[in-house]
Amino acid sequence: MKTCLHTLATLVLTLATMLCAVPTHAEDGYDLWLRYHLLAPEQAKLYRDHATEIIIGSATPTQIVTRDELQRGLHGLLGNTLPLSDTVTHDGAIIVGTSASSPLIAKLQLDTQSIGNEGYVIRSVVLDGHTATAIVGRSDIGALYGAFHFLRLLQTGQPIDHLDLHESPRITLRVLDHWDYLNGQVERGYAGTSIWDWWKLPDWRAPRYTDYARANASIGINGTVLNDVVSGATILTPVYLEKVAALADVFRPYGIRVYLSVRFSAPIEIGGLKTADPLDPQVQAWWRAKADEIYKLIPDFGGFLVKADSEGQPGPKDYHRTHADGANMFADVLAPHGGVVMWRTFVYSQASADDRAKQAYEEFKPLDGQFHANVLLQTKNGPIDFQPREPFHPLFGAMPKTPLMMEFEITKEYLGFATHLVYLGPLYEEVLSSDTMVRGKGSTVAKVIDGSLEGHTLSGMAGDANIGTDRNWCGSDFNQANWYVFGRLAWNPTLSSRTIAEEWVRMTFTNNEAFVKPVVDMMMGSREAAVDYMTPLGLLHLMGPGHHYGPAPWDASESEADWRPVYYHRADHLGIGFDRTSNGSNAVAQYAPPIAAQFNDVKQTPERFLLYFHHVPWDYRMRSGQTLWYELVAHYTRGVDDVKQMQETWRHLDGYIDEERYQQVAAFLAIQEKEAQWWRDACIAYFQSISGLPLPPGYAPPQRSLKYYESLSFPYVPGFSSW
Amino acid sequence: MKTCLHTLATLVLTLATMLCAVPTHAEDGYDLWLRYHLLAPEQAKLYRDHATEIIIGSATPTQIVTRDELQRGLHGLLGNTLPLSDTVTHDGAIIVGTSASSPLIAKLQLDTQSIGNEGYVIRSVVLDGHTATAIVGRSDIGALYGAFHFLRLLQTGQPIDHLDLHESPRITLRVLDHWDYLNGQVERGYAGTSIWDWWKLPDWRAPRYTDYARANASIGINGTVLNDVVSGATILTPVYLEKVAALADVFRPYGIRVYLSVRFSAPIEIGGLKTADPLDPQVQAWWRAKADEIYKLIPDFGGFLVKADSEGQPGPKDYHRTHADGANMFADVLAPHGGVVMWRTFVYSQASADDRAKQAYEEFKPLDGQFHANVLLQTKNGPIDFQPREPFHPLFGAMPKTPLMMEFEITKEYLGFATHLVYLGPLYEEVLSSDTMVRGKGSTVAKVIDGSLEGHTLSGMAGDANIGTDRNWCGSDFNQANWYVFGRLAWNPTLSSRTIAEEWVRMTFTNNEAFVKPVVDMMMGSREAAVDYMTPLGLLHLMGPGHHYGPAPWDASESEADWRPVYYHRADHLGIGFDRTSNGSNAVAQYAPPIAAQFNDVKQTPERFLLYFHHVPWDYRMRSGQTLWYELVAHYTRGVDDVKQMQETWRHLDGYIDEERYQQVAAFLAIQEKEAQWWRDACIAYFQSISGLPLPPGYAPPQRSLKYYESLSFPYVPGFSSW
Repeated sequence: MKTCLHTLATLVLTLATMLCAVPTHAEDGYDLWLRYHLLAPEQAKLYRDHATEIIIGSATPTQIVTRDELQRGLHGLLGNTLPLSDTVTHDGAIIVGTSASSPLIAKLQLDTQSIGNEGYVIRSVVLDGHTATAIVGRSDIGALYGAFHFLRLLQTGQPIDHLDLHESPRITLRVLDHWDYLNGQVERGYAGTSIWDWWKLPDWRAPRYTDYARANASIGINGTVLNDVVSGATILTPVYLEKVAALADVFRPYGIRVYLSVRFSAPIEIGGLKTADPLDPQVQAWWRAKADEIYKLIPDFGGFLVKADSEGQPGPKDYHRTHADGANMFADVLAPHGGVVMWRTFVYSQASADDRAKQAYEEFKPLDGQFHANVLLQTKNGPIDFQPREPFHPLFGAMPKTPLMMEFEITKEYLGFATHLVYLGPLYEEVLSSDTMVRGKGSTVAKVIDGSLEGHTLSGMAGDANIGTDRNWCGSDFNQANWYVFGRLAWNPTLSSRTIAEEWVRMTFTNNEAFVKPVVDMMMGSREAAVDYMTPLGLLHLMGPGHHYGPAPWDASESEADWRPVYYHRADHLGIGFDRTSNGSNAVAQYAPPIAAQFNDVKQTPERFLLYFHHVPWDYRMRSGQTLWYELVAHYTRGVDDVKQMQETWRHLDGYIDEERYQQVAAFLAIQEKEAQWWRDACIAYFQSISGLPLPPGYAPPQRSLKYYESLSFPYVPGFSSW
Repeated sequence: MKTCLHTLATLVLTLATMLCAVPTHAEDGYDLWLRYHLLAPEQAKLYRDHATEIIIGSATPTQIVTRDELQRGLHGLLGNTLPLSDTVTHDGAIIVGTSASSPLIAKLQLDTQSIGNEGYVIRSVVLDGHTATAIVGRSDIGALYGAFHFLRLLQTGQPIDHLDLHESPRITLRVLDHWDYLNGQVERGYAGTSIWDWWKLPDWRAPRYTDYARANASIGINGTVLNDVVSGATILTPVYLEKVAALADVFRPYGIRVYLSVRFSAPIEIGGLKTADPLDPQVQAWWRAKADEIYKLIPDFGGFLVKADSEGQPGPKDYHRTHADGANMFADVLAPHGGVVMWRTFVYSQASADDRAKQAYEEFKPLDGQFHANVLLQTKNGPIDFQPREPFHPLFGAMPKTPLMMEFEITKEYLGFATHLVYLGPLYEEVLSSDTMVRGKGSTVAKVIDGSLEGHTLSGMAGDANIGTDRNWCGSDFNQANWYVFGRLAWNPTLSSRTIAEEWVRMTFTNNEAFVKPVVDMMMGSREAAVDYMTPLGLLHLMGPGHHYGPAPWDASESEADWRPVYYHRADHLGIGFDRTSNGSNAVAQYAPPIAAQFNDVKQTPERFLLYFHHVPWDYRMRSGQTLWYELVAHYTRGVDDVKQMQETWRHLDGYIDEERYQQVAAFLAIQEKEAQWWRDACIAYFQSISGLPLPPGYAPPQRSLKYYESLSFPYVPGFSSW
């Protein structure tokens, strides 16, 4: 018997060795937050009692992917494969689906009235004498969202024994905008090229498309605009629509609709017409036929995104029509099919001498009420262009009769490209929680865009994606958090960015508290650090011309005045800042009166927006008692110090996670420190050359001369479209 | 006791389940042929007796990577981690290194005189009373190559108990040429963008660079040209040389030297000179200083690759100097550092009315003897441009005093891009085994380029890489075989392409004979299939203009005559083909007399080259007894049938390998069939419109009209540099 035992023990070891020996790939970030690695034994053991079998109602495509995701996730997290079952035979079943497709679920008689078409209930129940967890939607998609939520509970170490969760999205359209060209370039993309392999579509449907859909569905994203807003019309030709349809087929089970950016002048370019005038019957007929053609291939096609009359793009103004004329033409051809138009308000005219910050408001506000019901106005979070910090866009709250859709930038065009660790959650949260005051206190931007303030049923949030062919999707592991937080806030714009960061860290790295806490703190401080080392105190648009890389506050090389940093900071020997008060451009007047009054008064204006609204003398006394010049230098310096502190934090976390991701983050933080120092030094050197003031005591002078910083040039900057 | 046993059994199962549960990534081709998966149990058991511990002499960077590779490989293949040891304590040690660094190896007194600096001996020995395997080089690199060979023996299921192998490379420089631009584009690349992330270099050294080096070292490649031959001069600026140096650091332990393509006019573009005249002392001084600067950063820098006076590139002729003048200028500045110049012979002049096939020979042959000792003339395998089939280049054998370096194209510019399954081994082998007859029978191209025919010690083979950021490196799994076979033939140009294919299949997929045999057969037939459906019987250059995608035998749109298909096939109502006999362009005269006589005679010319050398009437009687027209149609049809057969073969192999790679190959074969049919139909439709002949009985007419094929257009073709 002893021999037998010995043999068995040997067998155990051999088996263990052999199984361990299967080489697993190095961690490379491909799994994103859907990283279903085995939980700690005690945690897994707890969960196993509540995950013994899966009961799923029917075999629709969405239910199949729901089942697959649960099996995959639970197999990874708990280490066992859950059997599928039709009936509850013992404790711990997971029952997923809808009342309509599952008699078992119908029997539960759960109240799903309030959760809407995409919501879900997760509830610990007793069924046929056995405990079970019910994940129930009014639609298959709701149940899929619920399944991802259930997995997230396990991934983040939450209890699952007494669940009673009701969730539904606050915003109707939760959309990623891809700035992808058909040749594979991604404008302002820093994570490789486009993940759409147009050349091999529709014949080859890369598995990555499915993983993209899984990741999006897991955070509730339900739409994707496949191509850049400045693309040509080729995407609308039959050959390309077939490719689009293939992607739509892949995404459909995950509840993701496909949208396209369309070129206003397409009827001329590929339609053979002489005009694209939105009031021309031939033009309207061309678009109607095109819409019909698209919906024949893609019955659940989402609609069009349009950038018109902006930065050189064609638009209705070419024909002396309004934005409403243009948007409504598209709206009318899409309405019979249930599609929408997302019309961008990012317009400004270089012909106008007026403050660029004011132009979108002036253009669109008078049109409130003129847009058809399926038009959303997609508006960037701030009035300039996705800068590290801007006040909220004055259009939010100013067009009560029109659904305004938020556009956030997820890709870090102005925030250090791929390498800088900048978690955008606090930026998004700052904007969403801003109070427009248009209906009194509490009229937050979140309430404007979720439709609740004015009672719109159509609402939307778009994120300009940071996704590319890089193995880790986003160019760095921490950039994944920006995709994640965008999706979570689109689902519920009142969530806290810290809570979301913590979820993400646990799912992406580890539940080890010794790692989670410092990393969440580091993430939460990272955006303010970037503001400090790039554009503190309300400064913005100080970056290099065209490619937007690095500091160039001196730059006046751009053809257009309002593309030049000097247009924005207006520094002279007396002071710095853009006067947008009633003495200046009066941009403040575009806000609701209480906000306008606040921003109009230099003393009431929050210092984080100081130089955005005011031109202030260098010796202006800040709340700290120090001069503006002192605070400017101090902020720039603090930004660099913060990055050094992030490195220090990271150094202490070696060993908590896999070596591969640890090392890449460490290398990127080193790049960030170098570039933060460069930003600080170049900006201080430049502003000092204007102010003529000595550096405050204790602050190190720039490492190199202003001349040196001005001399740097950067060929082949990624993400810049002039390849 | 029973309970105890039961508990133990449960433990086994639990352990097994848990270990199995760690989700391994899906197979995605990233591992290439270095796929160290667990061998079949009986095979692994046999090998384990000969792999009990690793003894390695010293801790040089190369010995460290050698040790790591052996541990990684043996851990994967055999399932156990081999301990490191200093002394032989029991049977089965693997002893790796050089006599110089290891007293144990010195004690063996192996004869390593004949293996050269990069060769190795692998020998089963008895040492201190124990059996062992010695892997011995005269240099660390030799030992590394030996370690890869040893692993290959296990991967391919060879016996390892009585080894006595001596290997050394026949060719000095075994080099990959990357056609990568600094902006990330890869000219004629179909596998994503450049794997060099220039933007993040030198700070971020992606792990992929190391895997690239491992893959190359495993097949003996010892050099890499990082940038395209038509790049600008930016790569030579200090900022970029630092990035190049970082890559060189990564590659150095693997015996891989870095080379750069340089722009002839760099002294003007980045040097501020007014001329790039190779005889100008200032120009020479500029290049000397540049070479010194490079070697300071990269002491083992390999040298320069130059495309001069070719397709619009600047060169010595701009200054009325010869190619020798140009090449020697570079040679002289590199010689003190041990660097070489690889000077491309791919030149032709559109000003010349002469047959393009003749121009390189006419340009270079007279210069034989004028090149300095460290110049190689890099010559494409055929006289036109990497077509599916060409006769060998007449320069091979024609310049006895100059080392001629072979240039093969690995990327499938003319052979179906990423998706077509075309194994290039037979193409390479056909060229290398061609007999130039310049020194009598047996004067093969292989002997010309390995230097043995004329006694050159410097020799080289370059492959234009098919590598990009695609996860599987090469755009498809089977394209990896073309990288592999290039490396193996550069090591030994007399190897059989079938043997290499079999090695590759076993390493990449499985040792299961039921899979290996049909797949090797399929690979071996695939190149002839492509020739048949694209350009049979000596036709060539029938592809679409510029982007080189698809058939366009009708095309005459290119600006230059010799970029037009009609220039090459010369079809008219009487016949087809390019008369290169003494009655025509007399290109045949560039070959040695016996070969020239053979090609000059239509009856002696192999039919595979028929229309390359002869203009032949449509009713010309072929060896089969059928007319040329009949055979042309039959070949085109056979090509399509062969692809259908490949699909059939593959269908029977479902289940032998992982689902992921199986499905991608299946999808790509479907694309290949569609495109093979298109090639056949478009070419037959066109040639029929010229010959006016009816299709032979039994052959299906083209599926669409000639007009239809002519109407097709292809925006955004990958690999085409005009992005």
